[in-house]
Amino acid sequence: MMERVRGVTLRALYGRLTIGNGCRRVFPRYQTVSSRGFNANMSPPSKAVVYDQQGPPDQVTRIINFPPVEIKENDVCVKMLAAPINPSDINRIQGVYPVRPTVPAIGGYEGVGEVHSVGSAVRDLSPGDWVIPSPPSFGTWQTYIVKEKSVWHKINNVIPMEYAATVTVNPLTALLMLEDFEKLTSGHSIVQNGATSMVGQCVIQLAKIQGIHSINIIRDRVESEEVKERLKKLGADEVFTEGELGAKNIKALLGALPEPVLGFNCVGGDSASLVLRLLRQGGTMVTYGGMARKPVTVSTSSFIFKDLALRGFWLQKWMSAGKAKECRAMIDQLLDIIQEGKLKYEMQLVPFDEFSVALDKALGNQGSQPKQVLKF
Amino acid sequence: MMERVRGVTLRALYGRLTIGNGCRRVFPRYQTVSSRGFNANMSPPSKAVVYDQQGPPDQVTRIINFPPVEIKENDVCVKMLAAPINPSDINRIQGVYPVRPTVPAIGGYEGVGEVHSVGSAVRDLSPGDWVIPSPPSFGTWQTYIVKEKSVWHKINNVIPMEYAATVTVNPLTALLMLEDFEKLTSGHSIVQNGATSMVGQCVIQLAKIQGIHSINIIRDRVESEEVKERLKKLGADEVFTEGELGAKNIKALLGALPEPVLGFNCVGGDSASLVLRLLRQGGTMVTYGGMARKPVTVSTSSFIFKDLALRGFWLQKWMSAGKAKECRAMIDQLLDIIQEGKLKYEMQLVPFDEFSVALDKALGNQGSQPKQVLKF
Repeated sequence: MMERVRGVTLRALYGRLTIGNGCRRVFPRYQTVSSRGFNANMSPPSKAVVYDQQGPPDQVTRIINFPPVEIKENDVCVKMLAAPINPSDINRIQGVYPVRPTVPAIGGYEGVGEVHSVGSAVRDLSPGDWVIPSPPSFGTWQTYIVKEKSVWHKINNVIPMEYAATVTVNPLTALLMLEDFEKLTSGHSIVQNGATSMVGQCVIQLAKIQGIHSINIIRDRVESEEVKERLKKLGADEVFTEGELGAKNIKALLGALPEPVLGFNCVGGDSASLVLRLLRQGGTMVTYGGMARKPVTVSTSSFIFKDLALRGFWLQKWMSAGKAKECRAMIDQLLDIIQEGKLKYEMQLVPFDEFSVALDKALGNQGSQPKQVLKF
Repeated sequence: MMERVRGVTLRALYGRLTIGNGCRRVFPRYQTVSSRGFNANMSPPSKAVVYDQQGPPDQVTRIINFPPVEIKENDVCVKMLAAPINPSDINRIQGVYPVRPTVPAIGGYEGVGEVHSVGSAVRDLSPGDWVIPSPPSFGTWQTYIVKEKSVWHKINNVIPMEYAATVTVNPLTALLMLEDFEKLTSGHSIVQNGATSMVGQCVIQLAKIQGIHSINIIRDRVESEEVKERLKKLGADEVFTEGELGAKNIKALLGALPEPVLGFNCVGGDSASLVLRLLRQGGTMVTYGGMARKPVTVSTSSFIFKDLALRGFWLQKWMSAGKAKECRAMIDQLLDIIQEGKLKYEMQLVPFDEFSVALDKALGNQGSQPKQVLKF
């Protein structure tokens, strides 16, 4: 299905931009176009990260300008403030994601913006309000977005914009994984690998709030002691490197902590096996990523005698299952937690014009970097 | 915990048999022993397959004689009629099973017998009744068993004894796996590997009764066409060899059959991967065996994007979860199906005295063989 951008199909718009002599037509801001004999309410022109085909993101993406579009009576025109570059955004551009917009498409999936203007029938939103697309949707890497009012969820503007821009994909994944697979109560333990990831950091903090202990696995690295300290400051009960867990009697390392009933895996391969080894009898491991690009390997006896269950989690599928209302309630809950200072994670705001620098960092070409968030 | 045999601990009994000059004391049948000044109701002497230590079953098992034991007021003395040699019996003797009787122990876990005599307080059972230990319990490979009345479940004696002897471990596993993991209704499909196994054959027939299609995977072998014919006669909708499923477009092989929502794996390795590939989006694979002695390998995307769930099933654990009553009701249901001629599987009755021959076949030393059932 063709992705619609600000009221018209991207293909139609994009066609207009490239046909003829191929030059990019830049329309003046706030231009009002008279068409079919009446004055329409028009958006400002927009600037967006577009890719014409799936492929290496640093090769297939470029920033182009879009002309103003009409703001219909139920539409809201949002001036985007910030939007992150998540691994799933990169995967969509690479074409390795099973659900992806038809190309040409605009990048990005979540973000926050400020209402710029509204259609004549819109009552609940006013210029200046902060909104996020909720459930998130394609095409947040652009300066102005016009979409139907139901797309937008109004939020408080008392938290830093980079948190509002990033609250959906990673913190919500962490919250849902903690809630949807096992009935956890205070005193339980969970175990996770990839604990330094943004979801990993959220899991630690959201577990802590509920009195749930977290046992965390990180890669072996030179600065592992600093990483351990950082995660413990967030609330991690234990942090082990994969090497430390090579011990035969892995359970002895848990000390007084109860054996975890739930595990999260975003790495795969041997690191997933460590999660499985640490789980208690009857526990569940949820896979939500595969950073090591290696499959999960499970012994027969883990299934039969240890009664482990293995599941997967994909936020986009959860979203598509009629969870829009529930999603917004959980987002509000997360925003409250952020406002209270109980949910923090490292980010770096990068001016939109420096998109290629941010992308380079997000692609991992400059070593370990904080989450890159575009500032429009 | 010490396994109790006919009222006294096996260790105590067995000690009596081997101390002194080490000869085996054989007591005359129907002997009545006077002890502590009163005449007790005694069992006949018994002959049992015993193993002194875990190890290769053909090396550690031997048949020995046990003296009569007292039949207390709530006890029932059962003359065993038949008991199978299941793979799990072999695994228990080998010591590779996580729950196993303390050695020395008597082999076997299920079987059928005829009530020989009852204690003074037993009203519900009479000599001649057919009974099975339900839930099953250790030590069915012996000619006479004395256990408390609650152990025994009275069944109809209108079906062949070899079916009564084998109804619990394999058919019940098949029935529970079809019922406990997904809500299947008429028109659904399931997929399984190891389809020629006894559980596999039961799955085909029990699915058929409920209008559920079965897609079956067998090893590549010379006589694969005959095997396919045999399974189709039982009710299999499709039977593929592993080699045939190497095709790229595996789903095309299903023709008009719906993609299976549930899969059963008793093999592991590549054969388990075929089950996973055939499952539909959101499907579940249940592992209940690992004949290939290879782990199950699962891609990250199978969990995240295909939303597969992987579980395990172990009858012994299910039994231990307070399911005694439910178990007996299901056994009765299965016995009715057997009586109606709708559940069949290949078996070979072997005289108890030829235990070593039956064991050799059960160990797979003579190629593919029907289920070996000891006849006492």
